[in-house]
Amino acid sequence: MNKKTMMAVVKESAAPGLAYKKLPVPRPGPGQVLVKVAAASVCGTDSLIYEWAPWAASRITLPRVIGHEFAGVVEETGEGVVGTETGDRVSAESHYFCGRCYQCRTGRPEVCANHKIMGVDADGSFAEHIVVPAANIWHNHPDIPDDVASLQEPLGNAVDTVAAEDISGKRVLITGAGPMGLMCIAVAKAMGASRIMVSDPNEYRLELARLMGADIVLNPKVMNIEGPVLSATRGEGVDVLLEISGNAKALSTGLALLAAGGRASLLGIFRGPVPVDLNNHIIFKKIRLYGITGRKPFSTWHTVSRLLYSGRLDIGPLITHRMKLAEYEKGFTLMKSGRCGKVVFTP
Amino acid sequence: MNKKTMMAVVKESAAPGLAYKKLPVPRPGPGQVLVKVAAASVCGTDSLIYEWAPWAASRITLPRVIGHEFAGVVEETGEGVVGTETGDRVSAESHYFCGRCYQCRTGRPEVCANHKIMGVDADGSFAEHIVVPAANIWHNHPDIPDDVASLQEPLGNAVDTVAAEDISGKRVLITGAGPMGLMCIAVAKAMGASRIMVSDPNEYRLELARLMGADIVLNPKVMNIEGPVLSATRGEGVDVLLEISGNAKALSTGLALLAAGGRASLLGIFRGPVPVDLNNHIIFKKIRLYGITGRKPFSTWHTVSRLLYSGRLDIGPLITHRMKLAEYEKGFTLMKSGRCGKVVFTP
Amino acid sequence: MNKKTMMAVVKESAAPGLAYKKLPVPRPGPGQVLVKVAAASVCGTDSLIYEWAPWAASRITLPRVIGHEFAGVVEETGEGVVGTETGDRVSAESHYFCGRCYQCRTGRPEVCANHKIMGVDADGSFAEHIVVPAANIWHNHPDIPDDVASLQEPLGNAVDTVAAEDISGKRVLITGAGPMGLMCIAVAKAMGASRIMVSDPNEYRLELARLMGADIVLNPKVMNIEGPVLSATRGEGVDVLLEISGNAKALSTGLALLAAGGRASLLGIFRGPVPVDLNNHIIFKKIRLYGITGRKPFSTWHTVSRLLYSGRLDIGPLITHRMKLAEYEKGFTLMKSGRCGKVVFTP
Amino acid sequence: MNKKTMMAVVKESAAPGLAYKKLPVPRPGPGQVLVKVAAASVCGTDSLIYEWAPWAASRITLPRVIGHEFAGVVEETGEGVVGTETGDRVSAESHYFCGRCYQCRTGRPEVCANHKIMGVDADGSFAEHIVVPAANIWHNHPDIPDDVASLQEPLGNAVDTVAAEDISGKRVLITGAGPMGLMCIAVAKAMGASRIMVSDPNEYRLELARLMGADIVLNPKVMNIEGPVLSATRGEGVDVLLEISGNAKALSTGLALLAAGGRASLLGIFRGPVPVDLNNHIIFKKIRLYGITGRKPFSTWHTVSRLLYSGRLDIGPLITHRMKLAEYEKGFTLMKSGRCGKVVFTP
Repeated sequence: MNKKTMMAVVKESAAPGLAYKKLPVPRPGPGQVLVKVAAASVCGTDSLIYEWAPWAASRITLPRVIGHEFAGVVEETGEGVVGTETGDRVSAESHYFCGRCYQCRTGRPEVCANHKIMGVDADGSFAEHIVVPAANIWHNHPDIPDDVASLQEPLGNAVDTVAAEDISGKRVLITGAGPMGLMCIAVAKAMGASRIMVSDPNEYRLELARLMGADIVLNPKVMNIEGPVLSATRGEGVDVLLEISGNAKALSTGLALLAAGGRASLLGIFRGPVPVDLNNHIIFKKIRLYGITGRKPFSTWHTVSRLLYSGRLDIGPLITHRMKLAEYEKGFTLMKSGRCGKVVFTP
Repeated sequence: MNKKTMMAVVKESAAPGLAYKKLPVPRPGPGQVLVKVAAASVCGTDSLIYEWAPWAASRITLPRVIGHEFAGVVEETGEGVVGTETGDRVSAESHYFCGRCYQCRTGRPEVCANHKIMGVDADGSFAEHIVVPAANIWHNHPDIPDDVASLQEPLGNAVDTVAAEDISGKRVLITGAGPMGLMCIAVAKAMGASRIMVSDPNEYRLELARLMGADIVLNPKVMNIEGPVLSATRGEGVDVLLEISGNAKALSTGLALLAAGGRASLLGIFRGPVPVDLNNHIIFKKIRLYGITGRKPFSTWHTVSRLLYSGRLDIGPLITHRMKLAEYEKGFTLMKSGRCGKVVFTP
Repeated sequence: MNKKTMMAVVKESAAPGLAYKKLPVPRPGPGQVLVKVAAASVCGTDSLIYEWAPWAASRITLPRVIGHEFAGVVEETGEGVVGTETGDRVSAESHYFCGRCYQCRTGRPEVCANHKIMGVDADGSFAEHIVVPAANIWHNHPDIPDDVASLQEPLGNAVDTVAAEDISGKRVLITGAGPMGLMCIAVAKAMGASRIMVSDPNEYRLELARLMGADIVLNPKVMNIEGPVLSATRGEGVDVLLEISGNAKALSTGLALLAAGGRASLLGIFRGPVPVDLNNHIIFKKIRLYGITGRKPFSTWHTVSRLLYSGRLDIGPLITHRMKLAEYEKGFTLMKSGRCGKVVFTP
Repeated sequence: MNKKTMMAVVKESAAPGLAYKKLPVPRPGPGQVLVKVAAASVCGTDSLIYEWAPWAASRITLPRVIGHEFAGVVEETGEGVVGTETGDRVSAESHYFCGRCYQCRTGRPEVCANHKIMGVDADGSFAEHIVVPAANIWHNHPDIPDDVASLQEPLGNAVDTVAAEDISGKRVLITGAGPMGLMCIAVAKAMGASRIMVSDPNEYRLELARLMGADIVLNPKVMNIEGPVLSATRGEGVDVLLEISGNAKALSTGLALLAAGGRASLLGIFRGPVPVDLNNHIIFKKIRLYGITGRKPFSTWHTVSRLLYSGRLDIGPLITHRMKLAEYEKGFTLMKSGRCGKVVFTP
């Protein structure tokens, strides 16, 4: 097998763009697993790497196969791998945690001090084959098809964002209806949020938000969202803010609309430090604010998998585009346009 | 108004049975509210009073108008009542808490040391009119009809039972499919439980359990439930046990089927002390066990109301019988037979 | 009694300064209690009112007796008061909550939508007598002397700040060693924080910090605090940040020194919106941030009282100055100088 | 090194008693570490094995070196071990978890479905040398001496028992003052419990309880403990019950004395199923009951270590006897007599 080659989407040079190249199929080392990729979905992080944004430039060593959301079939297992076998249908937790740092040893591997990210610090899933640590393997449920299974990774972020506190029976404002915001809508609805309001300046996304289950969609470019949110909440404001936009104005509006005693989860990444009115928006209202990154391995994977196979969570409308990996340029153009939900590649 | 009379269902004597009698309409004192009852539902507690079970005999002073679940319209407010007005559509928290005991002053009024229960320690809702403390009044949402609104009180118990810990994405066993168990099914489903298994020896109720959203129904009289529960959970057992039956065998089976690290909520009342295998069922599995009584005022009321008016929670199939209050004997016979969901009286 | 007079410290005009005036002794209305003040301590809020800071100017109606921390003896009870009697030794929760708003009805009276604050929205405790709602009365433990009892109110803030999450065995950084920060030191120590680091630019206060139990004191004016904090935490950073200074730089430094997976409580009030590096300080580290205001009535009062009378909490060194109420100017001068812990007035 | 021998305390035959034998020094395999034992403390489990109690007989394969609490120095590391080196002063988590089961993958390795226990399922620490998995190694703080360090393992149980919910400012009843109960006293005190009451029929242990910090000690053989407990809690009962005795009567008394809204942690092992008055002791009082087993790796180790090295936790009085490993019979006789705290062996 060591002479085989595969096609992969690779970041080769320190500039915008990617390449579609022939590479040797990687070999699984001890404790690793080789997977044949069946579906790989595109994340905003991939777009940042495509564009060679400052974050990407400061972190990535070239060349690098990118992509970190996928589903596939195990082809080969390295030495010492237990519990995973050739032929297993799998996905993988994309954050490789060390297991030895303070965070890993106190039950918080999602903030491992030494974590490496698939497709960023190690070769990723926009390829025909990928090698991942066996400790990161997730066995897919037989009733979940590959394209949906490839979304379990970002759905885990949505679960951690939505469920930072019990959301059942709560009135929720989600600022930002990109793919992550759309997933949060579906997850919040599945978990019993009683009223889901979503704001985004992009009408295409607001339409998707409705399809995903939003009760009220609001375009802050064409209206003040304060009025509708307050009138939908008896003037009290929302119980929960899920900030997914990374937009300072959206955060400020969202915090202002949060009822005293409420909570906010922050998943969206900001361009830099943002001014926060801590007195009026956090302290005097006794708000609890949760920074969210990654996913709790593997409790969020269990939650996501079960919500999917039980039918409680339907993310059908979210996958708006499917295409061959070779057509990756089209996928990235779509992502940039904002006129898509999730884009899924098949090698 | 003080010469008016009303019909009411009254416990008159220390023996099984009830009476349908003409009584003076009560007057609201300071801080109290008089409500014209539009719908009043029957609870298992009412049946215990009907039958003059030991618990009832030891607690109730006669005569007593019974009933503690209702919806109606405010007719008159006593001195000093603020925020509730004639014509308001209301229900009421049935546990009258003192506001001054240790529990009330530390945020646990549901276990008030001096609580009195509507229809048990004070006259209840199986009557054309009822007086309740203004502090217990709940304003009904306009989109919730009276018969459903009368169920908000027991639905609050179900919410506290189901949501003692986050249930989203969890595999749940509910032992007991009487009205409270049936409500727990609907609430657990609305809150994202991924697989709901229900056991009960009564086939009629198992049929209702299916209608309420149970994924798997099991009759322990005709089968061992262990096999199906384990096979539905990859041999791991369930994550959550909701014990609603008050049956010692059901509890023992349920705890045995609980996965290590899981939690149990106990709502069902037992006939007396029951043997519990604390070592194997609680300690070695690190189980968290929650005793549940009453409802958190008024956070559970908010949750129930929002789940109902948003349509997340559909309890339509639960109300199997509606009848005039004068037909109360028929209602209690139905309750005794076990061939009903909730029975709702209209005066 | 209605012809009696008393001396009180009053804010009379919209300018810096206060007056010491003769006023009629107030009478307790229904549900109210008249208390003879035995000790009243000074809070930073009182200083803001003295100086007529923008916050005070925008909120207070003149004239107003100020002060909201005290202990005393009940002199008279209004109509309908139950459980409090003449001669009782009491203090009082200074936030008067309405009991009917969304927050009050869901167990969060400390963020009551209609709350009024003693000494701000109603006449306060810098007087010989004060009227307070019976619902706010706290009965002092016989072993706690009046001057210490008057500090139970701000100690409740400290408890909510420290105990937003379990602090036992945690490494803690407290930014700000004013009276509130000093109380947080003592509370954190009593609750088992394993290492308490405190930063403040005022050497007098750092000395008090040591007396209150700080393990490491740091003056950011004369050194970078990063080095010592990291070296005391194996390079991991602290598990808990308690921000009491209201200083943007202190917040930023504190959040930077917080280990991934840690939590922060914010009690200090800022001059206005402050820039926060949400990405690096909150999101990528999965921090939980708690805004703190007021105190949970009355669970914090129970905690404070028990820690005091059991001797677990010793706040002796905190009360640096005691004086007659008539000497209030001296007290406010001390507060402004920063060369004091708590100042306690006796009428 | 493979020809070296060591002395060890071994369970050889299916009958009461142990043997002191010469055995080959074990070799560390891949991912394992060889430790030279400096101190090893005796646990009640060791006594059960000595006596060949039913639990031991049903679980242990012979022969077996017993003991699972120790401190020592790393002598040799197996292939692939990272982060642990020869000369390191270490102890070890005694539950070897698999890392792959449902519990391990959802953050609950302390209830690993496949766990093996040092000294029970694998050779233990009552020997001059022991091999343990590197994943279980804990690096001891330089300020903690070996005999105290050997107690970190059971202290972890105490931490999980005490801290199942925040105990600061709470009134606590501990039923059972054996070594585990004594540790719970010290831990509860370090974490700010305001009043600690301890019941045990053994006066020697009650004396130790006082030394460890109990405020009130009660002997149920010579008095009813209800009166003193209620009078120390204003008639309300305790906020927290820590059941360490495994005695059905103690549990029943303890639950009866628990205030409505309180919580109980169960660590003591019972002889078999025990009758529990679930209605009155759990359900109507809305009690939260926590089964406790093992320790959360490694968050409890961090807590224990920090409380020890900071001096917050002083377990000096607990180590009542120190002796050579060869004198093990004397140690087990002491344990059986109940006239000891912890017994520590040095090889």
